Amino acid sequence: MIKEITSKDNLMIKRIKQLEHKKYRDKYGLFLLEGMHLIEEALKYNTILNYIVYSDSFIKDPYQEELINFLCEKNNSIYNVSDSLFEYIAETENPQGIIAAAVKPQTDFEEVLKTDGSSVVILDRIQDPGNMGTILRTADAAGIHGVISMKGSVDFFNSKTVRAAAGSIFRIPLFQFNDNNQLTDALRRHKKKTIATSPRAKDYYYNLPVFENYGLIIGNEANGVSETLLDYADYRVKIPMLRDTESLNASIAASIILYEMVRKKMNI
Amino acid sequence: MIKEITSKDNLMIKRIKQLEHKKYRDKYGLFLLEGMHLIEEALKYNTILNYIVYSDSFIKDPYQEELINFLCEKNNSIYNVSDSLFEYIAETENPQGIIAAAVKPQTDFEEVLKTDGSSVVILDRIQDPGNMGTILRTADAAGIHGVISMKGSVDFFNSKTVRAAAGSIFRIPLFQFNDNNQLTDALRRHKKKTIATSPRAKDYYYNLPVFENYGLIIGNEANGVSETLLDYADYRVKIPMLRDTESLNASIAASIILYEMVRKKMNI
Repeated sequence: MIKEITSKDNLMIKRIKQLEHKKYRDKYGLFLLEGMHLIEEALKYNTILNYIVYSDSFIKDPYQEELINFLCEKNNSIYNVSDSLFEYIAETENPQGIIAAAVKPQTDFEEVLKTDGSSVVILDRIQDPGNMGTILRTADAAGIHGVISMKGSVDFFNSKTVRAAAGSIFRIPLFQFNDNNQLTDALRRHKKKTIATSPRAKDYYYNLPVFENYGLIIGNEANGVSETLLDYADYRVKIPMLRDTESLNASIAASIILYEMVRKKMNI
Repeated sequence: MIKEITSKDNLMIKRIKQLEHKKYRDKYGLFLLEGMHLIEEALKYNTILNYIVYSDSFIKDPYQEELINFLCEKNNSIYNVSDSLFEYIAETENPQGIIAAAVKPQTDFEEVLKTDGSSVVILDRIQDPGNMGTILRTADAAGIHGVISMKGSVDFFNSKTVRAAAGSIFRIPLFQFNDNNQLTDALRRHKKKTIATSPRAKDYYYNLPVFENYGLIIGNEANGVSETLLDYADYRVKIPMLRDTESLNASIAASIILYEMVRKKMNI
């Protein structure tokens, strides 16, 4: 059944505004999905939608009407709001008129790491949500089995991350680790070979051997991979800079290495 | 000589606000550089700074004071404003307290294209300024000689593009083309081989032969490379998708191909 909301002071509206902040995403175990595409992807991967809010102008043709009817059958918390109230809760500049609070996926990193041949990406204090989302999207396309974020990284469930991940948020298992010891212990136990990028490395990335079962460490945008993790890594590699550029964007560096590993696997 | 500005209605303040819009960047031939790093890069590459505005709290230690003194010697238009007035003109969330209006570089595409072995990236209606800036940064690192943007692309001199390009805006010649005929005519005359990415291509990108003197066409985020340019391209290649992902971010796809070309050049 669809309920109408007309006031900013409504509890559901307040909840959605709260979910813009990590504190409340953690508290409720929910995150926001804005736009039809993300909601369709969520349904495809059986993500539980706790509640859905759509605006009057969302329904443009029978397709959107069908989607709302389908969501009505599956969920009992669908709310309709005016366009101006939707603009108040929307985070995007040109809102499509639909937003949902989705239940955060439950994941078990031991399960992922123990799988033979599974590879992971490790985000060592990535700050920019767009970079993080783009890395999730590329890691997914490159067949990576999980992504670990170290303390000090931006939240996986930041709305900008979720949008940049373009659906990969539902497909790739995500883990948050508190410290380097938890990470290196897990990598060691599961015999993952680790690769870290560093402008001071001697070897170029394309000289990496062919292997599966790896962990690729991507460093902070300004400071790169921490000394501790650089020391821990089995392979330290650099990406050639052909002109007077200092470095590449973190998501670009990650993608070049990830696709080098795909290339090696497919081409040889 | 440093002048004080105290009002939002001051002409210089109005000019800076105007430069947030492409219309005025085109009219005045200027664009905005915000933050110390971009201004230092501009000086390194002899970019002319038309005027500079800094806030009271910009000067934190002797280094910033030296920079202002250096700019005073070189330029005659330096303005000091209060922190609150600076916040009004700043486009970033945590402003560093310095912004400059820089003269757009003058470039001659024939000059770049006629150089033997020169390669270019062609942006076919790239919409996102962050993507465009990231592509400029990677193209620069990969030794590309120029970037052409087709009509319908976001402005090279959009502040978000300039920030994401991280200094590459000063190093890589940039050209705007009005239509596909102007492009294909120039590419043909200068015997550039062209590569376009398409999910429907038969060949993977790593099967591209080794060559210089190429043009890499990167398509619009939602719709990819236009049919006309796909037809024109000498090589149509795809990037493998190992899971249920539809595509990669445009800047990621560009970087994977650009570094494949670097790899081929360096490794063989």
